[in-house]
Amino acid sequence: MTPNFQFQLASVANQIETALERLLPHPVGEQAVVAKAMRYAVLGGGKRLRPFLVVETARMIGGNIESALTVGSALECLHVYSLVHDDLPCMDDDDLRRGKPTVHKHFGEAIAVLAGDGLLTHAFGLLGEETAHPDSRIRAKLVCELAQKGGVSGMIGGQVIDITVSETDRDEDLITRLQEMKTGALIDFAVRAGGLISGADEMTLNALSGYARDMGLAFQIQDDILDVEGDAALMGKAVGKDENLGKATFVSLLGLEKAKEMAKGLGEQAKGHLAPFGEKAQTLKDTVDFVLQRQH
Amino acid sequence: MTPNFQFQLASVANQIETALERLLPHPVGEQAVVAKAMRYAVLGGGKRLRPFLVVETARMIGGNIESALTVGSALECLHVYSLVHDDLPCMDDDDLRRGKPTVHKHFGEAIAVLAGDGLLTHAFGLLGEETAHPDSRIRAKLVCELAQKGGVSGMIGGQVIDITVSETDRDEDLITRLQEMKTGALIDFAVRAGGLISGADEMTLNALSGYARDMGLAFQIQDDILDVEGDAALMGKAVGKDENLGKATFVSLLGLEKAKEMAKGLGEQAKGHLAPFGEKAQTLKDTVDFVLQRQH
Repeated sequence: MTPNFQFQLASVANQIETALERLLPHPVGEQAVVAKAMRYAVLGGGKRLRPFLVVETARMIGGNIESALTVGSALECLHVYSLVHDDLPCMDDDDLRRGKPTVHKHFGEAIAVLAGDGLLTHAFGLLGEETAHPDSRIRAKLVCELAQKGGVSGMIGGQVIDITVSETDRDEDLITRLQEMKTGALIDFAVRAGGLISGADEMTLNALSGYARDMGLAFQIQDDILDVEGDAALMGKAVGKDENLGKATFVSLLGLEKAKEMAKGLGEQAKGHLAPFGEKAQTLKDTVDFVLQRQH
Repeated sequence: MTPNFQFQLASVANQIETALERLLPHPVGEQAVVAKAMRYAVLGGGKRLRPFLVVETARMIGGNIESALTVGSALECLHVYSLVHDDLPCMDDDDLRRGKPTVHKHFGEAIAVLAGDGLLTHAFGLLGEETAHPDSRIRAKLVCELAQKGGVSGMIGGQVIDITVSETDRDEDLITRLQEMKTGALIDFAVRAGGLISGADEMTLNALSGYARDMGLAFQIQDDILDVEGDAALMGKAVGKDENLGKATFVSLLGLEKAKEMAKGLGEQAKGHLAPFGEKAQTLKDTVDFVLQRQH
């Protein structure tokens, strides 16, 4: 990993925070509470990995960074809506997110549902605006891709599988498909969106999708490894949770050693997809190392 | 009202049903249940008034009817998502909708949240596709308008006001603004979308918005009147509910006679906005009469 990488990640996260601060609705009128809840959920936290991928893919191909920041912000709105709804009592019933009370704990369930709906709606609104890209064909394409990756054959479908398929019915195929839909689909959108706003052709988009697929899966496997090997203090949460819950993970299904090998192999494969971009791909390659070396 | 009107309304509802049947996701994979829930919520019911307005506005101005059916279907997906989420236990907690169990009663709360999210996502996906309109500038514009009218300064904001402002704090101004946001915003989208896909200019779009505003408000007032004067058997629900609940309505705030006068006046005003369209506006004028004469 280039020494500069962590600085670059933090720097883009800052730019995204500034963009979101400006692009999110401001609280006005009797309905102000819903805009407050949306801002509470989105602002002030997270590595902003998805927007980072949009921005760095655009930078690699020579796209406009302002476009990438708007599209990255839209993607972050969509990602955060999914967290707000997943945290609801009828779903995962979580009280804490990024170290603070979840939206329904702070604002009540009804406002949490509506704030999630508002973020989802706003994500598409941002993609439709000219600030996302001057060419309306690109904007319409981004809308279609986000609807697909965020929809029932993508992220939403992944969440459905996660809450309906019992742990004992999960084999390696199922948890791979689950990861591809629940988290992989938005990572795929991130790099493809970075490509689309930069005028990438089909072949380039396919290479980017290959990178996203392998990197996303490596990310999930590393997550499972950290749950076994991680340092609870560094992680900021309990470790060994998956095993205690009898969860089917890449580690429980493959064993620790094979899971580590697989993550490493996928990481190399992810970087391989970036060969056509030469030295310009350094940041996206560093992202793979970051994902595999992170301790939390 | 032209004798043919009811037939025309039913005929477009049929076309929309066919379009939705084709355009909604089909149940596949382990996540099939969410597509089933989306189809359960959308198919087989409703007057389809919003899509009807898209189609008939397009017909009046000479737009493409296939486009209008796709855009109308997208709007109906968005409308139905709002019903699914509004029915949730943490919101209005309703057990029945269009004579059958609500989505959360039939599929459970988690799937109801996700099916609503799926419909909202799908609505935007449909607007991004070429079948919505061959010109991507129009498609991007439709996406922006739907995000605005369906967002926190439109429909979602209206629902927030409805669940947070107590009945005793509601005056005529507040319930007018509430109606404009909660139901008026989508009616406005319906006619503007019909105009946009037909190449309408700003002046035409403004006239259509004026029609939508007056007609939408007349619709709400008539709703309040029916709750007092309606025949429970025809309505398919109890009457006198608003008064029993101490609800602030146009009737409770203005009195029955003044509410009736106001609805009639708004109806005439709505038709007045259609003057520039001459005889071609007959169906949209009939829609006003239909709204004011309906018994349920």
